[in-house]
Amino acid sequence: MTRVAILGYGNIGRAAEQAIKAAPDLEFAGIYHHNDCLDCLEADVVLLCTPTREVPKFAAVLAAKGICTVDSFDIHGQICDLRAQLNPVCEANKTVSIISAGWDPGSDSVVRALLMAMAPKGITYTNFGPGRSMGHSVAAKAIDGVKNALSMTIPLGTGVHRRMVYIELEDGADFKTVEAAILADDYFAHDETHVIAVPDVDALNNVAHGVSLVRSGVSGETHNQRFEFNMEINNPALTGQVMVSCARAAARMRDRGEVGAKTMIELRPIDLLPGEKESLIKALV
Amino acid sequence: MTRVAILGYGNIGRAAEQAIKAAPDLEFAGIYHHNDCLDCLEADVVLLCTPTREVPKFAAVLAAKGICTVDSFDIHGQICDLRAQLNPVCEANKTVSIISAGWDPGSDSVVRALLMAMAPKGITYTNFGPGRSMGHSVAAKAIDGVKNALSMTIPLGTGVHRRMVYIELEDGADFKTVEAAILADDYFAHDETHVIAVPDVDALNNVAHGVSLVRSGVSGETHNQRFEFNMEINNPALTGQVMVSCARAAARMRDRGEVGAKTMIELRPIDLLPGEKESLIKALV
Repeated sequence: MTRVAILGYGNIGRAAEQAIKAAPDLEFAGIYHHNDCLDCLEADVVLLCTPTREVPKFAAVLAAKGICTVDSFDIHGQICDLRAQLNPVCEANKTVSIISAGWDPGSDSVVRALLMAMAPKGITYTNFGPGRSMGHSVAAKAIDGVKNALSMTIPLGTGVHRRMVYIELEDGADFKTVEAAILADDYFAHDETHVIAVPDVDALNNVAHGVSLVRSGVSGETHNQRFEFNMEINNPALTGQVMVSCARAAARMRDRGEVGAKTMIELRPIDLLPGEKESLIKALV
Repeated sequence: MTRVAILGYGNIGRAAEQAIKAAPDLEFAGIYHHNDCLDCLEADVVLLCTPTREVPKFAAVLAAKGICTVDSFDIHGQICDLRAQLNPVCEANKTVSIISAGWDPGSDSVVRALLMAMAPKGITYTNFGPGRSMGHSVAAKAIDGVKNALSMTIPLGTGVHRRMVYIELEDGADFKTVEAAILADDYFAHDETHVIAVPDVDALNNVAHGVSLVRSGVSGETHNQRFEFNMEINNPALTGQVMVSCARAAARMRDRGEVGAKTMIELRPIDLLPGEKESLIKALV
């Protein structure tokens, strides 16, 4: 049994615990917190369910101890840097770090790679939502006069999104002033944005999310090849599950000596699944 | 440059030739026919675009020569046998055979594996069509009194399909008799089937096809995770393109010493794509 521990215990950590316990081939190796001493940690793989900015630090510390990690690091522009930074540490310590292993980046990346292999020329549009954007919610909450905020991402197609920003005002704050400040903020200035005052933001909270990946492309010389991948999911539950499936892959890769820092498009899909190769091929191929 | 040749030159062979020529990193190494002497064949990878039943024989002959092959062998119940038969030949000759690398089996298999990793419990329905079924068309054509036939597969959801059978009658054949024989045939007896007489079956021919993969499943303990993958495609163009993308993967795997017979769920998606790893990760992850 592969022993899988969790570092950090927010929404994703809790979902990951459930996914580990539901897996027939994994053993739950406990929860650790950011300030715990990690020297006594006993696990084959640690899931980094910390805030995304803390991932690089913990991944490097654990890789240096020869422990596999899986994270859902989601700052798209910094993924290659994280991979380049972790890769030599993993190689030196004969371990595996699977990075950016949520749904986007993560499973969506695998779908995008597959669609490009099926129709190399063309455009893939990634349409997010409807669902909460953490980054935009935090940006709205930082505006003067905003007590609490929820920014929903609404897909308008071809990768264009509307922002529906629900805000709870501080006592005495002026709605029009706050609205103008939100619309001028760099997070919102480039998208169609609607600001709505509500008495209680928390009453609107919902971890549902979704995506629609759309590609029209060319296979060989044949145009008009059309593809679409849609999902409507509980966001932390899916993120936690993808991380747990990647924990299995990390342990298998380390056992085969395939060490290093890897993104999900560098993994064999069969390694994500429990069970024997032959029966998986029989069931899925 | 990886040199890729084609054995067999029907619809799929022609589409594969176009896909090789469109690839920036592959060199077209010619067309071979079933009865050619294969001793003079010079290629790194051969695409087996022969009838599916001839695949096992040619794959074994070429693997024994140390040449990589890719096929789209589509008899679902025999895929594991083909893999088991080819694997030792590939290992002994340090080569790679990628088998069942079309769209189903093939790219659909990768989507099914990914969906299972995202929501391990649940049901995936594979709904084919609308599109022509070769097997059913051949079965209808074999009925006494049928001059030509086209059987279209129509998806009704939850993996249930309707068969629309367009037939051209032989002179003097009785429609009601022919219809009864088709409905009683084992290919059609288990599905809703409609038989329609037309003056010219060839006038209806169209290589369009499609699929809708639908999964509702459980991530960890969270139910109602919903996924859907749809495509509407030119069938031989997609099959040829997927085979060509797998030819690239086969050559890379052989160069790394990862030899053997593999299905698409055993490949890293990144190996299907041309270009440098870093730039692919930047573009797709």
